[in-house]
Amino acid sequence: MSPPLTPQLASRLAEIEPFHVVVLVTRAKALEAQGRSIVSMVIGEPDFPTAEPIAEAGVRAIRSGNVRYTPGLGTGALRERIAQWYGTRYGVEVPASRVGVMPGSSGALLMTMGVLLSPGDEVLLADPGYPCNRHFVRAMEGRPVPIPVGPESAYQLTAALVERHWGPRTRAVMLASPSNPTGTVIDFGELAAIHEVVRRLGGTLIVDEIYHGLTYAGRDRTVLELADDVFVINSFSKYFGMTGWRLGWMVMPEAVAPEVEKLGQNLFISASDIAQQAALEAFSPEALQVHEQRREAFRAQRDFLVPRLRELGFRIPVEPTGAFYVYADCSALTDDSYGFCLDVLEQAGVAIAPGIDFGEHLASRHVRFSYPKPISVLAEGLARLERYLRSRS
Amino acid sequence: MSPPLTPQLASRLAEIEPFHVVVLVTRAKALEAQGRSIVSMVIGEPDFPTAEPIAEAGVRAIRSGNVRYTPGLGTGALRERIAQWYGTRYGVEVPASRVGVMPGSSGALLMTMGVLLSPGDEVLLADPGYPCNRHFVRAMEGRPVPIPVGPESAYQLTAALVERHWGPRTRAVMLASPSNPTGTVIDFGELAAIHEVVRRLGGTLIVDEIYHGLTYAGRDRTVLELADDVFVINSFSKYFGMTGWRLGWMVMPEAVAPEVEKLGQNLFISASDIAQQAALEAFSPEALQVHEQRREAFRAQRDFLVPRLRELGFRIPVEPTGAFYVYADCSALTDDSYGFCLDVLEQAGVAIAPGIDFGEHLASRHVRFSYPKPISVLAEGLARLERYLRSRS
Repeated sequence: MSPPLTPQLASRLAEIEPFHVVVLVTRAKALEAQGRSIVSMVIGEPDFPTAEPIAEAGVRAIRSGNVRYTPGLGTGALRERIAQWYGTRYGVEVPASRVGVMPGSSGALLMTMGVLLSPGDEVLLADPGYPCNRHFVRAMEGRPVPIPVGPESAYQLTAALVERHWGPRTRAVMLASPSNPTGTVIDFGELAAIHEVVRRLGGTLIVDEIYHGLTYAGRDRTVLELADDVFVINSFSKYFGMTGWRLGWMVMPEAVAPEVEKLGQNLFISASDIAQQAALEAFSPEALQVHEQRREAFRAQRDFLVPRLRELGFRIPVEPTGAFYVYADCSALTDDSYGFCLDVLEQAGVAIAPGIDFGEHLASRHVRFSYPKPISVLAEGLARLERYLRSRS
Repeated sequence: MSPPLTPQLASRLAEIEPFHVVVLVTRAKALEAQGRSIVSMVIGEPDFPTAEPIAEAGVRAIRSGNVRYTPGLGTGALRERIAQWYGTRYGVEVPASRVGVMPGSSGALLMTMGVLLSPGDEVLLADPGYPCNRHFVRAMEGRPVPIPVGPESAYQLTAALVERHWGPRTRAVMLASPSNPTGTVIDFGELAAIHEVVRRLGGTLIVDEIYHGLTYAGRDRTVLELADDVFVINSFSKYFGMTGWRLGWMVMPEAVAPEVEKLGQNLFISASDIAQQAALEAFSPEALQVHEQRREAFRAQRDFLVPRLRELGFRIPVEPTGAFYVYADCSALTDDSYGFCLDVLEQAGVAIAPGIDFGEHLASRHVRFSYPKPISVLAEGLARLERYLRSRS
């Protein structure tokens, strides 16, 4: 047996960061193993089980014995069902041929960057934002260009920002609405303006609509109401409650579908057939009723959490109206949000995510609360935080 | 609504080919829709259902309601179970910390290339071989270097070939044993020699062991018996019969595991939790009994098919002793294997894969038969082929 060598590693790895929150989650588990009680508001995952009609469809799929590789863009039945959803939910016509069913929205993001980016191509995106987005760009040898955004634009890009940061290598612009970590929704007029700028400058607009369905003010508007030349990323994980099943989808320009199919066949063959068969039930009236009840629960959790966080000294300048996150300015309480998160975990037994996981812009002044938890749990977390903050002052 | 534009596409796409067999599969479905009977020996997928102990564990996972994101390298329980398997099956000690559970072996291949390759790095691999391998390299901006191999080396690379093709940018060598499409197993002494050459030249050895378990001559030997500084790719799809669940794994050098975890968290979050919970049963005595019965069925199918193909005029110079494929030289019957496959489908109603899907070396002289089918089906396919070949002469 030869001694293990450390192989030389790919250059991309130096620019791909781990989730800092993993340190916190690991520490939280260690504390729990020691008998400590931890209130976790870290992971973007509700603790509801998957709605029963979906779960039972998954059981039937397994018991049928018919669990196979599927076509690279997903089963015809599910692509058709998703296309119909755009009609009933948004009143917009999307042919099934433009829908690609993917192994999670992660798969959709990988495909989107994989078909759009040549080495060195740049993608403009909001800072703060979902950290994986810039890593998908980097993994495909593109260059993410984070643009600092703040409360003045509801933490979203604007047409003016896009135009100002456009460069000779800019290939695409990525938006997320509702946004992780800020829970804010982009104004539909601004979205139209951004689309116009991107089109005029010869780029491609990518919109993460993963948290669609989980909005608490007005109805969801999809960029597909505006245009066919865009990429939309969506997921069965959040509104449809299927995180651990790993299923998502994308809508793409018609002409690109064969390229995505080709790349997808090669890079992952297909998404889980069980998840695809189960997801056919995700749009049924019975399942939608469950999803809507949960949306109301999330709204109540948000309504409970936001004012109380403000009372504790967190600043929340823009009301989060979507997803299940509060991105809170903690600068009145600390000038080092990462150290603050570590300390809050140790001292108060509350786990929250540091701003550094979502970018660099004012990251040390922000923390993210993930709130899809029973209100009793949120109340306990807030009580602990309050004791902790009092003990420091 | 603006008219759809075709976005400018990534440079990598020009070097990633679709599966040519998709044309055949699509045509086969069209013929079936017209009422034609088609004997399909195309897809690398047995038509057995997943073994019941695994399926029922999947059902329990779903009904528990506990289906979540898992850690990026998989659940601790499954990583531990896979590590044990190396002990019981191969007598080799592999710590669970070196095991990464992935969304299919596809995910494992993407991670391997993602952590090893910087742009322009070269990977040596056998031609013919699994086409996705070179596309994973290309997707990560590496350069696949196909090395022509033939019957003289059982369609496998040798230490001499590796040394001869090594260049200044060579970063890794990829082997597959048993091989898709040839069904051949690499000689263990040659494997050791290749490992020595790769180590001496400062590269990394990657071994696809996806078809381990499905071997019909002697016991499986893993490269992990030889070394710790290698990457091994494996799958729950083939021997364990879980294609549509999309689950695989990799074994990697200890020092690389945090890098794979980081990249995996970002690029796919985690593999399906349902599949991971179900796969805990894949190694149970009950499931292994099913897997072994199926291996015997595949062996009988191979024993039935190979001599009859030879009688029909196909040359099979190296007995396939693994996987469920026969890579047959059809040059006595045609000088255009792709046209031959199209014609065989139209005229005889038999679907087989053309050599072009597996590389360039003598591709027009070869076809691949995928044989995990009941012998009655194989017999019908052979009878049709025989009538077709007679009608041409």
